[in-house]
Amino acid sequence: MKNRNAYIGVFDSGAGGLTVVKHIEEMMPNENILYFGDTAHLPYGTKSEKQIKEFATNDVAFLNGFELKSLVIACNTADSVARETLIKEFDLPIYGVIDPAARKAAEVSENGKIGIMATTATVRSDAYAKRIRHYRKDAEVHSLACPLLVPLVENRRYKKEDIVVSTILQEYLDQLTVHGIDTLVLGCTHYPLLMDAVQSLVPDMKVISSSKEAVLSLKKSLEMTGQLNDESGSERRFYVSDDADAFRANAEVFLNEKLTREVIQVSV
Amino acid sequence: MKNRNAYIGVFDSGAGGLTVVKHIEEMMPNENILYFGDTAHLPYGTKSEKQIKEFATNDVAFLNGFELKSLVIACNTADSVARETLIKEFDLPIYGVIDPAARKAAEVSENGKIGIMATTATVRSDAYAKRIRHYRKDAEVHSLACPLLVPLVENRRYKKEDIVVSTILQEYLDQLTVHGIDTLVLGCTHYPLLMDAVQSLVPDMKVISSSKEAVLSLKKSLEMTGQLNDESGSERRFYVSDDADAFRANAEVFLNEKLTREVIQVSV
Repeated sequence: MKNRNAYIGVFDSGAGGLTVVKHIEEMMPNENILYFGDTAHLPYGTKSEKQIKEFATNDVAFLNGFELKSLVIACNTADSVARETLIKEFDLPIYGVIDPAARKAAEVSENGKIGIMATTATVRSDAYAKRIRHYRKDAEVHSLACPLLVPLVENRRYKKEDIVVSTILQEYLDQLTVHGIDTLVLGCTHYPLLMDAVQSLVPDMKVISSSKEAVLSLKKSLEMTGQLNDESGSERRFYVSDDADAFRANAEVFLNEKLTREVIQVSV
Repeated sequence: MKNRNAYIGVFDSGAGGLTVVKHIEEMMPNENILYFGDTAHLPYGTKSEKQIKEFATNDVAFLNGFELKSLVIACNTADSVARETLIKEFDLPIYGVIDPAARKAAEVSENGKIGIMATTATVRSDAYAKRIRHYRKDAEVHSLACPLLVPLVENRRYKKEDIVVSTILQEYLDQLTVHGIDTLVLGCTHYPLLMDAVQSLVPDMKVISSSKEAVLSLKKSLEMTGQLNDESGSERRFYVSDDADAFRANAEVFLNEKLTREVIQVSV
């Protein structure tokens, strides 16, 4: 049994995984969190499997130098491509974003037709379809690579009133709604910021955030194993592989508030 | 004197530098070209100086394993940040994209007010302003980071009829035209594809492509030193640091035709 006060390690290619951190803070405010953003190598979503596995292994090797009670792959791309590699390589309880979102989608869909918006690498891996069919054999899964969404969000364009956002989202959504889906997974930790814009374009759709489902699932696990931190006060540490100031500026987008903690640049 | 048949080495973070290759093919069809796209680490434009210098040094070290008569930094970001590092490190005639475009802008501007559209890293380096003032002391240079343009072009969105393209371009252009510029440098090798869309929004502006100016300048240099290849037939070699097929698909955007040559993935 790991120390309850040990860190929850969270990593992503950049700042998108902070949407996961934000949910941890909301749902489990006493947890100590260690975040690593591999900003020297972002984005992962456009890279090959081999590269992503290599990057993710280095990320976790860095976090594993601290006392972790669990590790969250807060990046759908890394989770879809490198999950098995990480489980083999590291003796850590590893939580992802894909399984919880896939499970939720399988549960809530009425007609079994589910759409996935994700990065090119996540779509190529087919991880969502496999995982959804694990929970619901008859599910019909339609996955769509949406490579413009990460750059848009990173440039703070995610409001539904923005014609650029609504045009691009509508084009992507059209390619999914044509299949009659009733449930849509936002399969990238950048995408929760687009939730309102998506929901306004498809008001009847059940829209699932992989960031939120991941943290709900993590919380349940920690509760069941008696590992929730019950002491008040919480530590936060932020590490990145490229410029710390650039990360800090970007972090504000995902946390919806200023990141006041120190950010430390390290080599991995 | 280098062998006239030796390669012109060209590198970029990805496929954008192919706009330079295209101009070399048009203006100097007999040249042998060796291209390296560091696709495992793209984009460079959002990364720190330290990272960009490291990446660029590795890129040139790889190309330098072949017989080169000249090396073209076909990436404004790498040229603006790593040029001096590369000149110190390698005994090669090194040509960039910034000096030729800066010189041309200084020449053609009537009121001396010049706008630069470029990546975040290029703007941060202030390389264009320094170089333009080298040629024209009284020049007033306004540089603007345009981080959405690379993702748009990579996703084949560069046509003037595309509302997404025209909206984003208009927003960027407004921030430059407010200063009364009469000349605009497209300071990224991805941007030549946006030339028509830009020109349609600002029809009276003198718009300069750094890719084209770089090749005009290279050609002049090779002519002056008697190094132009006068034999017919030309060799092309394409190397990348990530998936070769993904590069091939992307290459078509920049070459405006299928890339039929072999693309080889290497580790650098």
